[in-house]
Amino acid sequence: MLSPLCFPVRLKEDTIFVLDETKLPFKETYIEVRNLDDSLEVLGRMKTRAFGQVLLFFYTCVLNQNIEEIASAFKKTRPTFDFFSLAEILKDTYEETGSLREAANFMIEGFEKKRKNRAENLARLLPLQANILTICNLNGELIYLYEALKEIGGNACFFACETRPYLQGTRLTFWELNRANIPVRLLCDNQAAILMKEKIVNCVIAGSDRSNKNGDIINKIGTYSLAILAHYFHIPFYVLIQHPKDIDIQEMKIEERPEKEVFLWLKERNLWPKAIYPAFDITPAKFISNRIDISGEIA
Amino acid sequence: MLSPLCFPVRLKEDTIFVLDETKLPFKETYIEVRNLDDSLEVLGRMKTRAFGQVLLFFYTCVLNQNIEEIASAFKKTRPTFDFFSLAEILKDTYEETGSLREAANFMIEGFEKKRKNRAENLARLLPLQANILTICNLNGELIYLYEALKEIGGNACFFACETRPYLQGTRLTFWELNRANIPVRLLCDNQAAILMKEKIVNCVIAGSDRSNKNGDIINKIGTYSLAILAHYFHIPFYVLIQHPKDIDIQEMKIEERPEKEVFLWLKERNLWPKAIYPAFDITPAKFISNRIDISGEIA
Repeated sequence: MLSPLCFPVRLKEDTIFVLDETKLPFKETYIEVRNLDDSLEVLGRMKTRAFGQVLLFFYTCVLNQNIEEIASAFKKTRPTFDFFSLAEILKDTYEETGSLREAANFMIEGFEKKRKNRAENLARLLPLQANILTICNLNGELIYLYEALKEIGGNACFFACETRPYLQGTRLTFWELNRANIPVRLLCDNQAAILMKEKIVNCVIAGSDRSNKNGDIINKIGTYSLAILAHYFHIPFYVLIQHPKDIDIQEMKIEERPEKEVFLWLKERNLWPKAIYPAFDITPAKFISNRIDISGEIA
Repeated sequence: MLSPLCFPVRLKEDTIFVLDETKLPFKETYIEVRNLDDSLEVLGRMKTRAFGQVLLFFYTCVLNQNIEEIASAFKKTRPTFDFFSLAEILKDTYEETGSLREAANFMIEGFEKKRKNRAENLARLLPLQANILTICNLNGELIYLYEALKEIGGNACFFACETRPYLQGTRLTFWELNRANIPVRLLCDNQAAILMKEKIVNCVIAGSDRSNKNGDIINKIGTYSLAILAHYFHIPFYVLIQHPKDIDIQEMKIEERPEKEVFLWLKERNLWPKAIYPAFDITPAKFISNRIDISGEIA
């Protein structure tokens, strides 16, 4: 596998193995999850996120079977992500297959194809020499993108924002690109403007936790800043999305994480009690050049 | 004294005592400096910066007497700062007083008055309830500002950007405001846009290492991003400056610090070799609402 982050959560018989992302890049360890309580524990402690929480949701449904209950509990723990839609599509597939395990496996297998396809679609939009600024972590999809670019005669190098406070850029994106021998350099989040101004980067790529039919997205805190800056510097800003929903994104609940997490990755933890930590922000459609949908749509 | 950062460098007989800012907020320790080599060592290792390096320059001239040599050596160590101008004004005062020690003391005493005066001038420009976003550290001048605002019936609360990678916001600004019982909250640098959008802050205040007569400034990396964002959200952006110079600021050398410093304050140092660390950026005049000059000018 290209990156352990491509499939950070796996089911073997009746145990879910969750890659502990908070231990990366130092240790590649897996947490064993056997029931809903275990799942909520790893979810709440950010042991997995993004695509990992999709996988965790499906596999928890295989173990526990009560899809509605699991969706509600997951939603309560990580309010920004759309677990109810996952529940709907899982139920639909379950009706066809008659087995939750089969339904989950079928959907998850489909996801890999769709994510690769999404990366190929994005590759065709980029400059042939793509100097890509990115934020947070896209679970291996930047590796798919790099391969897709190479396939069409292009090339890429990456500039990973460290993504404070959780340092997903440093610990996950830099790590997975570097170990795949893909050119990547790290930067502090506040250095993006200078890279844009000096044309060191020529595009920005972000993921999204939610998106609506207007084209607005919710993603990791810091995305909105990058989008405004890219707009100012006339640099295209691409977002990988799931299926956009008919929702009022401005009314969505933005998760506030515990302020102590601001200091979790610093040398001295719990430095100060008084910090602010909204975990996500909303980027309006007008700042986004293209949205590349999991189903193959480019908007 | 309101904050040890107001006068972080002091001369007692023939020893300079430099507050080791890299040990703050954990320990308030002073490094003893006895000659130019010692001075360059503390300067290069960022033990002091901003107003501290002004004080260090003057006092090193008292010890070593060779103003030209010291200015060149300081400039080589921290290329963004204008040590040659300090040398000029010190020489002028020296000619009047006939003693370098007297000249240095005279100038440094004048500085405190001027900095307080600058804070009073800025206070009159701010909203009476000023919710101030700030970056890096202004060596106690935000405390002067807070007092000046109170004096005219106003009030302030501060939002300090942590200022990666060196965390001057976390370690210095938060620390000095909090210990002076001034309301302050920390944020990660990438969270500024959300505070602006939600009108949690109504102005931004930054310092500057250099400024020119066009009104452009050079300041800590991250300042430029904040200025573009503040411009977009129609939030006034104020800069404290020294005497503006007739220089082409776009041609100025921007100091590149060692990339290992990106990881210095993280739990695990030397994580990755490949990082980018320009230590400063340039903010063009069009993004700056007002510049408040040390000599009392407001432009």
